[in-house]
Amino acid sequence: MSTEDASARYNYAPGPAQLPTEVVAEAAQAVRSFPPHGRSILELSHRSTDFNAISEQAEGDLRTLLALPDDYAVLFLNGGARVHYALWVQNLSTPGDRLGLVDSGFWSRQAIAEARKLRDVRVLPESPDPADYADLSPADTDGLDFLHYVSNETLTGLSMPTPQAACPLVCDRTSDFLSGPSDIRPYVLCYAGSQKNFGTAGLTVLVIRRDCLREETGLAPGLSYAVQARTGCLYHTPPIYAWYVSALMLRWIRDQGGLEEMERRAQARADLVYSCIDASSFYANPIAPRARSRMNVCFTLADPELEIPFLQQAETAGLIGLRGHKVIGGMRASLYNAMPVAGAEALVEFMRDFERKA
Amino acid sequence: MSTEDASARYNYAPGPAQLPTEVVAEAAQAVRSFPPHGRSILELSHRSTDFNAISEQAEGDLRTLLALPDDYAVLFLNGGARVHYALWVQNLSTPGDRLGLVDSGFWSRQAIAEARKLRDVRVLPESPDPADYADLSPADTDGLDFLHYVSNETLTGLSMPTPQAACPLVCDRTSDFLSGPSDIRPYVLCYAGSQKNFGTAGLTVLVIRRDCLREETGLAPGLSYAVQARTGCLYHTPPIYAWYVSALMLRWIRDQGGLEEMERRAQARADLVYSCIDASSFYANPIAPRARSRMNVCFTLADPELEIPFLQQAETAGLIGLRGHKVIGGMRASLYNAMPVAGAEALVEFMRDFERKA
Repeated sequence: MSTEDASARYNYAPGPAQLPTEVVAEAAQAVRSFPPHGRSILELSHRSTDFNAISEQAEGDLRTLLALPDDYAVLFLNGGARVHYALWVQNLSTPGDRLGLVDSGFWSRQAIAEARKLRDVRVLPESPDPADYADLSPADTDGLDFLHYVSNETLTGLSMPTPQAACPLVCDRTSDFLSGPSDIRPYVLCYAGSQKNFGTAGLTVLVIRRDCLREETGLAPGLSYAVQARTGCLYHTPPIYAWYVSALMLRWIRDQGGLEEMERRAQARADLVYSCIDASSFYANPIAPRARSRMNVCFTLADPELEIPFLQQAETAGLIGLRGHKVIGGMRASLYNAMPVAGAEALVEFMRDFERKA
Repeated sequence: MSTEDASARYNYAPGPAQLPTEVVAEAAQAVRSFPPHGRSILELSHRSTDFNAISEQAEGDLRTLLALPDDYAVLFLNGGARVHYALWVQNLSTPGDRLGLVDSGFWSRQAIAEARKLRDVRVLPESPDPADYADLSPADTDGLDFLHYVSNETLTGLSMPTPQAACPLVCDRTSDFLSGPSDIRPYVLCYAGSQKNFGTAGLTVLVIRRDCLREETGLAPGLSYAVQARTGCLYHTPPIYAWYVSALMLRWIRDQGGLEEMERRAQARADLVYSCIDASSFYANPIAPRARSRMNVCFTLADPELEIPFLQQAETAGLIGLRGHKVIGGMRASLYNAMPVAGAEALVEFMRDFERKA
């Protein structure tokens, strides 16, 4: 097989992530030729009825998947969800508001740093013990106007369930959005980059309660959630193709059986890999079982010198993207919506083989 | 010919604009399969050596095309150049600065409105006569710290040459960037959305003099030009595919003969269409000849009732995207880098035919 033909079987990268074969095929075809004019979708106008059909399908499917009540708006904005660590504060809160932010790891701390520049911030939990992350009580949030948290810490592979809070929730869902059913009612805002569970790089989706769309923010109009909501996210030329790829993914998720099916697969994939890790002293994962992420399974090898051979042999076997984040090292298997359960099985088979031969 | 096979011959839309056939083919192939792993480019990591090769090629080609001195940085940021009407002010200037902004039409006025919210602004020229747009003198800019202008007003089809100013220039080049050679030296910042002359929607390119990269802006890091410059525009997940399409376009422009050749073609296209308009009382264009845009040729029909038939028959002939902006109506032929001279010839032939039959 020539290099030209070689195709990695599974991509465990933390995002941009693996996409389904059929979505890739349709996305490639649309670049070549998109009805009705047969020109590339890369030339499609955001003011056209054809684009309107794409955006309506995307929003409709998202609303169906989340069973979204009418009092929530959906925004399709530029990629780089990280900028919303500041923008949610500036869009939703006023200078006198008191914000709570949960510290559950690397990304939470970025969010905390941005919020602190803008508002009075309380960091929770007060005792930073991983076991506490899931154990906030409503009393912890007394006097807060908003509580922000990161539902899945991609870097360490730590998941946090919906906190019990006495105030509205804001959530960075970038790495677990649409990976399972979730009740939107405790939230005034959820936001997520599309490049993990529902698209490619270049798009961030926000689900926001309409009564939180404030007009007087002092922000440039293109950064104002209210302005973007009012203009159908067309205040400026939007990221049309990334939006289209997400439209394909949202339809794919719906066609596969919706969020219940995504959750069933996520659980099956994660169970396979964590079981393999736990069954061996060759591999290790430090996260408390109940806080373990279904999206990002991190692990180390008992002998760190074997990490490079592990990654090299995995790549030769067609399993790519397993290197952990440079901040903590080790391995990370990211298992998002488009990763088949067979992808987790292939990884586990490789891990067992590698251990046997080591 | 079935609808599936029908392909519009030329796309005169104001942006996203027509792309060259060979760029579309390569962009579609990359979505299907991208070396070395043979997976979709939509899965490509922005932290990979493969992406690094794309971004280095793009910046290298842009630097070559513009003969860019080392003291200028190039930023590849999210699309929606309009947000820079506020961001350039916040990134480059300080509250005490006095800004001049040229009013040459619709987009300039958006820029003026944003700047006024943030700083002390002088609008130029003081007499708003179209003939004045090209006639600022350095004395008009006395006491200003920056002068901002829009080099091409897409909506009306009005072009403005580099103003003679006593202060550094900032320019929204969204609709004429890379359409011809230009000396960067009078500018501290030029910015342009990619979807007209060098790519698809979802990307904005900034060329900025490095000594203007201020760290203390109070902006969120993702909106700070200094932070983006320092992180190679990877502070957050960037719009990878739009960036890649621009890399293809920049290479295409270079391979076609660079900015001199782009200018030759732009002049040839515009001359064809303006000549057709001027040779007839059936069509009209109100812009003073020396201020006429080479990028957007706007025209009206002496009988407005013929506009709808004109657009319909053009579309049937495979000529799409000719409807003028809703604010001013009429027709607009946008003739960007990827429009062959034959596209202008086809339009002129259609216009003459239509006039004959009317």
